[in-house]
Amino acid sequence: MRIGVLTAGGDCPGLNAVIRSVVHRALVGHGDEVIGFEDGFRGLLERRYRKLDLDSVSGILARGGTILGSSRLERARLSEATDNAEELSRELGLDALVPIGGEGTLTAARMLSDAGMPVVGVPKTIDNDISSTDRTFGFDTAVGVATEAIDRLKTTAESHQRVMVVEVMGRHAGWIALESGMAGGAHGICLPEREFQVDDLCRMVEERFARGKKFAVVCVAEGAHPAPGSMDYQKGEIDPYGHERFAGIGNRLAVELEHRLGKEARPVILGHVQRGGTPTAYDRVLATRFGWHAVEAVHRGEFGMMTALHGTDIDMVPLAEAVTELKRVPESRMDEAESVF
Amino acid sequence: MRIGVLTAGGDCPGLNAVIRSVVHRALVGHGDEVIGFEDGFRGLLERRYRKLDLDSVSGILARGGTILGSSRLERARLSEATDNAEELSRELGLDALVPIGGEGTLTAARMLSDAGMPVVGVPKTIDNDISSTDRTFGFDTAVGVATEAIDRLKTTAESHQRVMVVEVMGRHAGWIALESGMAGGAHGICLPEREFQVDDLCRMVEERFARGKKFAVVCVAEGAHPAPGSMDYQKGEIDPYGHERFAGIGNRLAVELEHRLGKEARPVILGHVQRGGTPTAYDRVLATRFGWHAVEAVHRGEFGMMTALHGTDIDMVPLAEAVTELKRVPESRMDEAESVF
Amino acid sequence: MRIGVLTAGGDCPGLNAVIRSVVHRALVGHGDEVIGFEDGFRGLLERRYRKLDLDSVSGILARGGTILGSSRLERARLSEATDNAEELSRELGLDALVPIGGEGTLTAARMLSDAGMPVVGVPKTIDNDISSTDRTFGFDTAVGVATEAIDRLKTTAESHQRVMVVEVMGRHAGWIALESGMAGGAHGICLPEREFQVDDLCRMVEERFARGKKFAVVCVAEGAHPAPGSMDYQKGEIDPYGHERFAGIGNRLAVELEHRLGKEARPVILGHVQRGGTPTAYDRVLATRFGWHAVEAVHRGEFGMMTALHGTDIDMVPLAEAVTELKRVPESRMDEAESVF
Amino acid sequence: MRIGVLTAGGDCPGLNAVIRSVVHRALVGHGDEVIGFEDGFRGLLERRYRKLDLDSVSGILARGGTILGSSRLERARLSEATDNAEELSRELGLDALVPIGGEGTLTAARMLSDAGMPVVGVPKTIDNDISSTDRTFGFDTAVGVATEAIDRLKTTAESHQRVMVVEVMGRHAGWIALESGMAGGAHGICLPEREFQVDDLCRMVEERFARGKKFAVVCVAEGAHPAPGSMDYQKGEIDPYGHERFAGIGNRLAVELEHRLGKEARPVILGHVQRGGTPTAYDRVLATRFGWHAVEAVHRGEFGMMTALHGTDIDMVPLAEAVTELKRVPESRMDEAESVF
Repeated sequence: MRIGVLTAGGDCPGLNAVIRSVVHRALVGHGDEVIGFEDGFRGLLERRYRKLDLDSVSGILARGGTILGSSRLERARLSEATDNAEELSRELGLDALVPIGGEGTLTAARMLSDAGMPVVGVPKTIDNDISSTDRTFGFDTAVGVATEAIDRLKTTAESHQRVMVVEVMGRHAGWIALESGMAGGAHGICLPEREFQVDDLCRMVEERFARGKKFAVVCVAEGAHPAPGSMDYQKGEIDPYGHERFAGIGNRLAVELEHRLGKEARPVILGHVQRGGTPTAYDRVLATRFGWHAVEAVHRGEFGMMTALHGTDIDMVPLAEAVTELKRVPESRMDEAESVF
Repeated sequence: MRIGVLTAGGDCPGLNAVIRSVVHRALVGHGDEVIGFEDGFRGLLERRYRKLDLDSVSGILARGGTILGSSRLERARLSEATDNAEELSRELGLDALVPIGGEGTLTAARMLSDAGMPVVGVPKTIDNDISSTDRTFGFDTAVGVATEAIDRLKTTAESHQRVMVVEVMGRHAGWIALESGMAGGAHGICLPEREFQVDDLCRMVEERFARGKKFAVVCVAEGAHPAPGSMDYQKGEIDPYGHERFAGIGNRLAVELEHRLGKEARPVILGHVQRGGTPTAYDRVLATRFGWHAVEAVHRGEFGMMTALHGTDIDMVPLAEAVTELKRVPESRMDEAESVF
Repeated sequence: MRIGVLTAGGDCPGLNAVIRSVVHRALVGHGDEVIGFEDGFRGLLERRYRKLDLDSVSGILARGGTILGSSRLERARLSEATDNAEELSRELGLDALVPIGGEGTLTAARMLSDAGMPVVGVPKTIDNDISSTDRTFGFDTAVGVATEAIDRLKTTAESHQRVMVVEVMGRHAGWIALESGMAGGAHGICLPEREFQVDDLCRMVEERFARGKKFAVVCVAEGAHPAPGSMDYQKGEIDPYGHERFAGIGNRLAVELEHRLGKEARPVILGHVQRGGTPTAYDRVLATRFGWHAVEAVHRGEFGMMTALHGTDIDMVPLAEAVTELKRVPESRMDEAESVF
Repeated sequence: MRIGVLTAGGDCPGLNAVIRSVVHRALVGHGDEVIGFEDGFRGLLERRYRKLDLDSVSGILARGGTILGSSRLERARLSEATDNAEELSRELGLDALVPIGGEGTLTAARMLSDAGMPVVGVPKTIDNDISSTDRTFGFDTAVGVATEAIDRLKTTAESHQRVMVVEVMGRHAGWIALESGMAGGAHGICLPEREFQVDDLCRMVEERFARGKKFAVVCVAEGAHPAPGSMDYQKGEIDPYGHERFAGIGNRLAVELEHRLGKEARPVILGHVQRGGTPTAYDRVLATRFGWHAVEAVHRGEFGMMTALHGTDIDMVPLAEAVTELKRVPESRMDEAESVF
């Protein structure tokens, strides 16, 4: 068989591990041929691809990024592909396409599948917000990076008797904030899933100081927002080129807490370090298993599906199911986290 | 309520995270009192315990080891406890006991429970070999340490054109070897669950060298054994004090491979570094959740049970079920791993 | 003898290692008594101190922060101490004081010494900007943290074809930017010691993209500034409480580069993670040696001096010399760094 | 100019950083041509080399090992090179050769230089035992790996009330044991430079246990040896193929301590993990500076020299000086280390 693979959307530790696994399993296990499209769906449309042999994936397991490049595709161009899905497959001699990506990519994958292309998707997102799978690779690495940062910040917060506000990734789902906040032992966690009250954070800090713990760490997802009326400092700022900038929730919350509490508060915006670099062992294993099972699904002809982790098993679930709604942090997990502050 | 907590058996990253979580949830969430027994069941028998307040668990989340100490208890002394389980509970005013430990500890917990003590267990083992739970804390840390070692060994193996044999923990179950071997990209993995053929390893190395990849890494669980007749070098060695030592499977396999292949082979025995030190974020979160749910189970009166991870949920399962048989690496996982060598 | 020790100024990995080393050497090597003042010079003025025995420094070698607490002292209160330096020493029975701190602390130490207090200083700063010593502890840890971040950012910059601007600490001296920029393989480094031209950075990025390297990383010290007229976006912004905020050089430079180049540019402000957490082995060794030699100097009666690293030796240098001018990055080191972009 | 570069001897983190730096400085700074010989001096003799451009060294800064390969050369073959040094240079059009290696390589470099080849050496060894330079790259990484292992072992030693014997590299010089022992807070350090008494170690352990510290860590260099008569267990063991194996000093010392103390003692032999993998920031900077200065020395015509770190400067020193004697740990450094146990 001839299997095409591509990576699309944002960077995510473990992409290379999937590519490597697909190539190994397909070549060694089944005698297939594998081609890699460059820069995501763009490479598919523009027929830019290269053959992937064992040598081409040698040494990439532990490397961040993607050797195939990635891109985000405008919806308009995507219909170029869906309009001619069957022809495209035929022309390229593709028996299957394995797109690796997040919600947008999997939606595109589903459209290609509906249009007649034999597709097996692999979910990827550091945000862990894809339904139908317990976890996605990249998430464990992001949580690890954020936790190590919180570990470091605690000692400096303590010596300076400061409040540290750590902003982590998570625009629509707060998984990274939840788990790095728990693992780092943050004293407050703010998630997109539940509006927070600045008053509650102030009370927590004051209680800590009253107990003699003269520092506090608040872990806030970039997509968290205060309850209406809870925070004075709401507005964005405009940079000289006319764009609103730099006044994300982490920065604003630190200003607000310092002002209200009369104690030093400092923001730390972790940003892109969370999505780059070598994946953790957990993410490498999960990514490798996803790649393996994607190839098996191809050989069983299970198209229109994606790989998913359920417990300790890798199952196949319909793409249609996977992308209907975002997986958000449930109330029960927030309750757990709050009780160990 | 008055809840006792103890840690028993071998060291495992995350023990302190459980203790901290139990104390926080019980004190803050329920207004309970928590006492910690010293050195495992021994402290219970000898009435050696201390009250645990929030301050006593401050700063321990990220620390390896256990602030309560641990020990292994002889079976004889254990019956001291089981014979008087109800009295002991009454005397100590214990409404519940939360023992944190591996197979031995959970078996003891079950015996205490059967004898009338209100017990909620928390499973712990770096080996990941406890049934009824998808994973145990400590395992992710061990795999992380082993994977980092394999990452480092690959560059040195490559520059010296060597075969590296990395021995990792796992006497009866090969989970650490399986996952660190996959994550590190080992070229051979030997597990206790399946006898290995030295010939197969030799063939793999020779094929790699023939392909121009002039090094190889074999990841071997300490409990792996060669198929009968497969390996010449079977015997242990006797140290001057009369104990058989140092000639574990890693050391013997390196000698054997060097001899058979005529290429340099070197053993690296990772040993105790796998079970000490700060837990990964994953293990801290799992340990914290286990502690939280143990306290909730206590308050629901669900005794004779232990916490277990199922998918993304923490459930309670009967202790009786949990300790009947070891969770071993299934064939399907070995197949997955082998295909990406 | 009775030796007092205190830590003052900003947090710095290795402070605890110095304290531990002073206590071990003084108690075990000389039979001295050691007392630790709380919260820097404030504890000295307010007679807040505790006796330090071996147990009190057990387990702190690898821990960030300072078990003694720290503070910055207003100049006015400092003269309380200098006006009564001899009396204070007599009253507290101090045979020597070992203050551990940066430029401000060492200047205070020198004033106390001039006023008659027997003082041996230990220099500390993550910025590495103290004259008379090759290096200070804390610096290696800060460079390590920043380098790891750059390593991670490179893969994400590459997959997104972006320019990353990493802002590291260094208000007056650019050592952290220089060494983390070199170690991380940044493509541009901006230091406080030399005004930079935005045009030069733009040219570098364009040349890289022309060569097919479709990403770039610029490492900029927080105290770096563009040549007059070189950068459009100069002004700070005012937050709702009236303070200028968030528009440090990293943020402004990213905006400017994105605008000028027409390519995505993203700022990452590493901030306080650089100064917290466990020290590297290098910093632990240097801090331990500084503590050891400070005690030896006390016993030789070499007061008014501080410990300094020269090559592989720890020497004593006059405090008067150490604090006259900041150690800045020399031209020759900038030339070296630039040539390997 | 045409500059040849090669790496010889054992693996060492930072080799790739030197190669990259030589190529960047030579090509960008001077418009030179650089060729890389494969597998050390063997590639020179066999005329196996490739041109190194900027692309060929892209992305190698943080990678362990050497992209050029390495080998150890028999003395006999070396004279092939020295006998025809001038012809070889002429034939290959070499204006300079930059060999990167340890004592053996630098001795060979000196012989080639004496024989008329224009040579500028770069010293490399994880053991830090080359005279005339304060430090060599690779050493900091090795110490970092060993220190992290000791950090982890302490928690497990403590929970099991054990003595841990950690064997680190260092056959003739004990720098790694000294610095990782200090940084990890080992309670005993054994170096090749000074015979140790097992009795002293036993006394230390017993004193610790008497003080309530119920564990101890001993850090021992592979080349350390006990004073004659100090240790019962002296003999090596013979493997089935007739080689003495596995009973290095770490293993033997653990047996001996367990036997004498009646307490559990466990050996951990760190082995090859110390010499592989990504270099620390310190080593990357030092390696990069060495490469830069080697090229500068070539252009100044300073042949027969090698790069050396003196304080904060990189100087050139005669190869003849550098290889006359091994740099060993001086008594004063051992005294420092001992006093903070």
